[in-house]
Amino acid sequence: MMSKQRTAVSPTREENYPEWYQQVIKVADLAEHSPVRGCMVIKPWGYSLWENIKLALDKEFKKKGVQNAYFPLFIPLSYLEKEAAHVKGFAKECAVVTHHRLEEKDGKLVPAGELEEPLVVRPTSETIIGEMYSKWIESYRDLPLKLNQWCNIVRWEMRTRLFLRTTEILWQEGHTAHETKEEALDLTKQMLDVYVDITENHLAIPVIKGRKTEAEKFPGADETFTFEAMMQDGKALQMGTSHFLGQNFAKASDITFMPREGNLEHVWTTSWGVTTRLIGAIIMAHSDDNGLVLPPRVASSHIVIIPFVNKEETKEKVYNYCKELKKELEELTYFKKEVEVIFDDRDQRAGEKAWYWIKKGIPIRIEVGPKEIDDGSVSLFKRTDGPKDRIKLSKEEILRTVPDLLDNIQTTIFKRAKEYRDKRMVKLDTKEEFYEYFSKKDCGFALAHYSAEESVEEKIQQDLNVTVRCIPLDLPKEEGVCPFTGAPSKQRVVFAKSY
Amino acid sequence: MMSKQRTAVSPTREENYPEWYQQVIKVADLAEHSPVRGCMVIKPWGYSLWENIKLALDKEFKKKGVQNAYFPLFIPLSYLEKEAAHVKGFAKECAVVTHHRLEEKDGKLVPAGELEEPLVVRPTSETIIGEMYSKWIESYRDLPLKLNQWCNIVRWEMRTRLFLRTTEILWQEGHTAHETKEEALDLTKQMLDVYVDITENHLAIPVIKGRKTEAEKFPGADETFTFEAMMQDGKALQMGTSHFLGQNFAKASDITFMPREGNLEHVWTTSWGVTTRLIGAIIMAHSDDNGLVLPPRVASSHIVIIPFVNKEETKEKVYNYCKELKKELEELTYFKKEVEVIFDDRDQRAGEKAWYWIKKGIPIRIEVGPKEIDDGSVSLFKRTDGPKDRIKLSKEEILRTVPDLLDNIQTTIFKRAKEYRDKRMVKLDTKEEFYEYFSKKDCGFALAHYSAEESVEEKIQQDLNVTVRCIPLDLPKEEGVCPFTGAPSKQRVVFAKSY
Repeated sequence: MMSKQRTAVSPTREENYPEWYQQVIKVADLAEHSPVRGCMVIKPWGYSLWENIKLALDKEFKKKGVQNAYFPLFIPLSYLEKEAAHVKGFAKECAVVTHHRLEEKDGKLVPAGELEEPLVVRPTSETIIGEMYSKWIESYRDLPLKLNQWCNIVRWEMRTRLFLRTTEILWQEGHTAHETKEEALDLTKQMLDVYVDITENHLAIPVIKGRKTEAEKFPGADETFTFEAMMQDGKALQMGTSHFLGQNFAKASDITFMPREGNLEHVWTTSWGVTTRLIGAIIMAHSDDNGLVLPPRVASSHIVIIPFVNKEETKEKVYNYCKELKKELEELTYFKKEVEVIFDDRDQRAGEKAWYWIKKGIPIRIEVGPKEIDDGSVSLFKRTDGPKDRIKLSKEEILRTVPDLLDNIQTTIFKRAKEYRDKRMVKLDTKEEFYEYFSKKDCGFALAHYSAEESVEEKIQQDLNVTVRCIPLDLPKEEGVCPFTGAPSKQRVVFAKSY
Repeated sequence: MMSKQRTAVSPTREENYPEWYQQVIKVADLAEHSPVRGCMVIKPWGYSLWENIKLALDKEFKKKGVQNAYFPLFIPLSYLEKEAAHVKGFAKECAVVTHHRLEEKDGKLVPAGELEEPLVVRPTSETIIGEMYSKWIESYRDLPLKLNQWCNIVRWEMRTRLFLRTTEILWQEGHTAHETKEEALDLTKQMLDVYVDITENHLAIPVIKGRKTEAEKFPGADETFTFEAMMQDGKALQMGTSHFLGQNFAKASDITFMPREGNLEHVWTTSWGVTTRLIGAIIMAHSDDNGLVLPPRVASSHIVIIPFVNKEETKEKVYNYCKELKKELEELTYFKKEVEVIFDDRDQRAGEKAWYWIKKGIPIRIEVGPKEIDDGSVSLFKRTDGPKDRIKLSKEEILRTVPDLLDNIQTTIFKRAKEYRDKRMVKLDTKEEFYEYFSKKDCGFALAHYSAEESVEEKIQQDLNVTVRCIPLDLPKEEGVCPFTGAPSKQRVVFAKSY
């Protein structure tokens, strides 16, 4: 009987992917469930990822002329009724505030002070922002209006999974208003490109961008753009969306403006958002059976230095060397930021520490013992290599090459994810192939023709739990025949199982 | 009849201070009331102040070893009952979520899906964080635990005022747990010092730090530290607080640890927070009858360049000159950040623009017309001078001196606020003096002896609406006699009317 290689995470991806995902979150100490159903506690190592994603996105938003603002957590119930498709779509499963006071009764606190009109905790803010925009916008001189907010939202999900689907969600929501359809549509696509840029270049996750079908688009939108990535189980994860809302919300909230010529018109609006789900994507796209693997560009710490001390009398020498090395490494710059270094001086065995940091996905681990000091070398381990793949370098070499090593890790992670995805992306031309493909365990993205009939989409979802993830914008165009209806199809779309 | 000087804000501070405050917020476009009672919409110019305050504080927190995390918005009602003083203190006026679904009924949406246990929207997070800490902390090795979160909280206020007292509040709340009383108390004071540093050196507001009396301390705390500033109407504004919670919350949430020696013990905890109220403080401490005055270190933009074009044929020349100047100014550094410059090319009269930016409090205004270009000079206006106090400088001089000019504005603002406060701070020794002083319109801070009897404090509050703002930590100590009871007093405390 062959002995199975021991891994830090159990079960492995192969054995049980969903459970492996939970375990990576646990061993990397990213987040956990809170006592409030569906709401998570994001712990520092997980939250730092969100901080870095925020920082990168916020900078790009501002380059596009978007300003940050803040709108209320609560939305009057009547506002949600304004846009018909919006209500129907997802305004219903949400937390409802009905009272504003607690009173003591038999030693217990009970709700008191009933509100005249219940308030809904925002599931998204189109309606309340629409109300404000209708006051602020009078003439074309007030346009475009481009605001974003970083905030929490609540959608009462029945089945939740850390980062991927939670009741309370941290996100950003951009809301813009424009003079013309063209300008609004262009902005919708610009923001999609910002997302794709950050996702591919910072998170190291390759994506396919495209439009959603009628069935999958945002309630109330004319057009929803999405970018989809493949996780290591072949499933698609919708990474974020950018919506062209047409004049629907402008009409619902009566947002009008005096144009350069002619009479009062309704503005054209957009909205776009990404959430802490992106952290789930980092986990599922990159991590391995030893735990988290972090792309250096979003890691809050790049390097850990672990001292190896076997005799008490060498401790001071090793510790001093480590502290000095930390200082020197911190003078380096990677990707326009200071290199962040942790010196792990906890009272614990070095081997334990090494595994602790492997599980947390820190890009580079450096081990320093008396031997290393004596021969002027340092042992360096890249998280993308095996846990024992030591690289011996002189201290000078380390200091010279760390930025390149980090970049090499970033590139490796992206390449690996892309190769993985491309290998699991197939072209399918018949209904039989299609059904067979998605009945296998190792299915992925199928590029197939599709004549855009909603009933077909429903049937496929029912039969296989597969949906059209997007109508790709950038894949080569090719006309053909829909394998499900025989109708002509303008291009292949991406079908997949999804989160 | 003497003609009154025209001001951009009406009424003036002298005429009606509370209404002046509202008007400054309006003319500077900082925030406004939303359709949801007590919740405000923070507009970009106001939100940028919060972003800059966050940035400065977050950096200092991290230097103290504090890490950011995120805890749920909702708190199970039963958690609030855990700490008796806490419940009694302020856990009662808060938004209560009782349902998680909306259903359509006669074309209306009505709450459905009643929750088994109602959820409270966090008024502060001691109880829920305590619950998590009790799981995470096992041994002294897990201590100290120092987390902070940037989030929104809800306290159902009956009378609200933009920034000062709102139903939904943006804030940060730090929560730490320690092995010993001394360490926790020390941390409480360290965080107070961080606040004072940022308030005095970034917000340019001088403060008095001190302890709260029993009557004024945080519900559940052993000791509350505060820092108080004087607004331009002589009233005190509590700028933020840092609480030493003793073992109260540790006992309520059963947060225990195995110490270095001996048996299981309860940890010692702290909490500390500041809110968007700090923006209210900036407004009330510095602004004048022409609008907002911003300390350069928290201003999101430092300089506006306004083109003066009287003939269409000079427009291009002037605009190009402005753009070039903007670029050159942006290469400068002020207070370790890039100088932020706005070129106001809106289609509007230059005079209108000038007043627009005066009202918004931008530190420096530069006006450029054909004449300035021809004679190589630039007209510069400091917000701390009068709106017409022109400084003529050559372009070279401007580029050389802008960082100094900004620093001069920062210093001027702080000095002005400090002189103002010191002038309105008096020592009072008899009850008669005290009652007379606080019956006048222009009262301020009174330093008086006080023997710490709660009934006295209540009486003074009832009679004069005056409270002990703090027992100062740094003012010279001096023993005396309490003018209200004749009992010996260890030191003078600060009495004032307050927000």
